Amino acid sequence: MSENYEVVLKRAVQAQPVAADFEVIGKPVPDPADGQLLVRCVYQSLDPYIGSRLRNKHMGEAAPQPGSALPGFSVGEVLRSRHPDIAKGDYVVGECGWTNFGLMAGNAVRKVDATLPLAAHLGVLGMPGLTAWAGVTQLAQVGPGDIFVVDAAAGSVGGTAGQIARNLGARALGIAGGAAKCAQVEGIYGFHACVDYHQAGWPDRLKELAGAGPTVHFENVGTSLLLPVLKLLQLYGRVVLCGLAEHYQSDAPPPEMPVGIIVGKRAKLMGLVVYDYYARWSEWVELARPWLADGRLVSGEDIVDGIPAAPDQFERLMRGQNVGKSLVRLGPDRG
Amino acid sequence: MSENYEVVLKRAVQAQPVAADFEVIGKPVPDPADGQLLVRCVYQSLDPYIGSRLRNKHMGEAAPQPGSALPGFSVGEVLRSRHPDIAKGDYVVGECGWTNFGLMAGNAVRKVDATLPLAAHLGVLGMPGLTAWAGVTQLAQVGPGDIFVVDAAAGSVGGTAGQIARNLGARALGIAGGAAKCAQVEGIYGFHACVDYHQAGWPDRLKELAGAGPTVHFENVGTSLLLPVLKLLQLYGRVVLCGLAEHYQSDAPPPEMPVGIIVGKRAKLMGLVVYDYYARWSEWVELARPWLADGRLVSGEDIVDGIPAAPDQFERLMRGQNVGKSLVRLGPDRG
Repeated sequence: MSENYEVVLKRAVQAQPVAADFEVIGKPVPDPADGQLLVRCVYQSLDPYIGSRLRNKHMGEAAPQPGSALPGFSVGEVLRSRHPDIAKGDYVVGECGWTNFGLMAGNAVRKVDATLPLAAHLGVLGMPGLTAWAGVTQLAQVGPGDIFVVDAAAGSVGGTAGQIARNLGARALGIAGGAAKCAQVEGIYGFHACVDYHQAGWPDRLKELAGAGPTVHFENVGTSLLLPVLKLLQLYGRVVLCGLAEHYQSDAPPPEMPVGIIVGKRAKLMGLVVYDYYARWSEWVELARPWLADGRLVSGEDIVDGIPAAPDQFERLMRGQNVGKSLVRLGPDRG
Repeated sequence: MSENYEVVLKRAVQAQPVAADFEVIGKPVPDPADGQLLVRCVYQSLDPYIGSRLRNKHMGEAAPQPGSALPGFSVGEVLRSRHPDIAKGDYVVGECGWTNFGLMAGNAVRKVDATLPLAAHLGVLGMPGLTAWAGVTQLAQVGPGDIFVVDAAAGSVGGTAGQIARNLGARALGIAGGAAKCAQVEGIYGFHACVDYHQAGWPDRLKELAGAGPTVHFENVGTSLLLPVLKLLQLYGRVVLCGLAEHYQSDAPPPEMPVGIIVGKRAKLMGLVVYDYYARWSEWVELARPWLADGRLVSGEDIVDGIPAAPDQFERLMRGQNVGKSLVRLGPDRG
């Protein structure tokens, strides 16, 4: 068995996390206790919510203490199982810290189809994809004729949301920061168009592209993008409030939005928390399976290799410098 | 034919309107032009939105100029018709200023059933009632098991909304300002309970009454009541944003609300503008008809007599001192 490394928290995080907040340590491969699995991790998922977890600001879940393991999901191969429902050789998604060989609770993992690309189980088929599916299909109920706008469109949630909307017959418009991200959104994800919000006057550009205005907006960033889009929204427009990433690391007062425009627009705003949809994961995987096969759903990934690269990769994610789903490759797909 | 009076605007309104902003003038009974009706008005409706109209703050509709007629609906009997769809003797609801004998555009009136109480066509069956119906049945889709909260519960929209919710199987809880209003909400409208927001700690009282928390909140006032109720809302709760009366006369910046709680609560917020439901008025009247007949729907009215009393009655409404639907009786039901 290979050597084992783990990323642990070096110090309490007070502001936006940086690579120096983390430390890579060597550790022995652990032994599973009753009910646990020993997993050879193949990909580690890095997600924006981890930043808010570290600052004790994520839905009441306690921040990890210095020296302890980090939250976040990985996908891997089960080497030993002490849980009756999971067998050696199964592939699972679960939490075991950012490490090569970790212990997962057998009752808290999700078995995945290893004939599908493993990285996809953390991205388009993973929590970001499930989030996109829930917002687009369950809350906004997007269909033909919709003019769908999503921001952080080069990110995993946004990029998947726009592709789902387009596949369901909507016009998919993205908002992203910078030319490289917009190129990914248009060229790789195949949105109808993408607007660069680093360019002054971007709402005018979005207005041109949206014609009569968006009928659906999927918000991943925060009020700085929400409010300009809300002004363009058609009457009776639906707004999915999903992520508020720009506010997670902020010490400013909690973000606010005007109330009057909701009334005037007869808008419907819907809060989305992906946890509510865990029981319905297979619905999304089965909808996505043919799209992945024929290329209508693309999993854009931003991958680095090896545990030592994880802290820098996470800092890049926190700075919004990732292009696509942020991952760390920990080992080969097949052991 | 009796003498004719009209209330006109005396001066531009800069702040919350007061009686002295209005003037009662005598005027001849007018002659209808082609397409118009001469109407003997029976009741004049006074509504909060008129206050925002006068300050040029209501959905882009221009404020009336000093010396001109005031907006607002009245119900009355058609004395002469020069419109092919309306006959002498019909009863209609329309706008002709606050006057005894006014001219209405024949294509802009709504014929009403004069076998129902005429005042009800401006209250529980009128725009406030239609507003309540749209919010409760079309947006929030209230049904058995719902815990329904509405503020301004002694007002016409709120009082009707709670009665509809109760009649559809929900637990109806009101919020109103002062003991007299709460007594009306509980004793006359028959809500399950009413909380007086003039009492410190009222959210705790509401929390006790709501058990697991409201599943639906119908907002008629503004953020000062919305935010405390939002904190109590159950997950997946629905919120109808209808009126923002506390902000209409305000010079403060437009009201804002926090965004994060919408996400955390997985709440659904829906903006309501009653204009959208005018084409469906008969649906509400037919639902309400048996309820009015057997007392399950009560039209609480705050009525004064005669045009000269209208300015003071409107000032009372603006101060929130009305108890029930604010009306001015202009003449007998039958001419």
